[in-house]
Amino acid sequence: MAAERLDEATIADNLHKMEGWVRAEDGNSIWKAFRFKNFVEAFGFMTECAIVAEKLNHHPEWFNVYNRVDVTLTTHDAGGLSELDFKLAARMDKAAAGRMPDHLK
Amino acid sequence: MAAERLDEATIADNLHKMEGWVRAEDGNSIWKAFRFKNFVEAFGFMTECAIVAEKLNHHPEWFNVYNRVDVTLTTHDAGGLSELDFKLAARMDKAAAGRMPDHLK
Repeated sequence: MAAERLDEATIADNLHKMEGWVRAEDGNSIWKAFRFKNFVEAFGFMTECAIVAEKLNHHPEWFNVYNRVDVTLTTHDAGGLSELDFKLAARMDKAAAGRMPDHLK
Repeated sequence: MAAERLDEATIADNLHKMEGWVRAEDGNSIWKAFRFKNFVEAFGFMTECAIVAEKLNHHPEWFNVYNRVDVTLTTHDAGGLSELDFKLAARMDKAAAGRMPDHLK
């Protein structure tokens, strides 16, 4: 898949279709805070995403503590956001969907 | 296991026995940067540590990007470092030992 830097209109369009992803101030990455019921749910989510990331050959920057997973996505090769970031973001949202505590859904 | 805050002498003694762990400036946590061959090795390490952490009911704060895993350990209930932190640290070192690239061993 092409890791070309996306233009502003495409980025805005992609972000508009997603929930909870925030663009960094410099515009070159997107960020989302995922919250789960406990550590096992959080790490289960990470494990599913890790397999997806490896298959896409596109990996997240992420921080975990207990039930919290903060994710940053960017494409270093493209010097900004590429289609890969939005593809991985969508797959992460899907992986999280079944694991979210009800009050966070 | 007791999550009591350790005294300075015990912390110094524990740290002396370990490699690569650095105490935070405020003294309340220890930190180590793990490096692996690739993402699969790094996430394999995290998976092993996740199971250990859940069994100890003591969880790391950790950041991963590709082959890099930065770990911070502290015991919030104790307001500093407890025996649990050093127990988890030792188990993480053991999990990493077989996975390190030769030039980092």
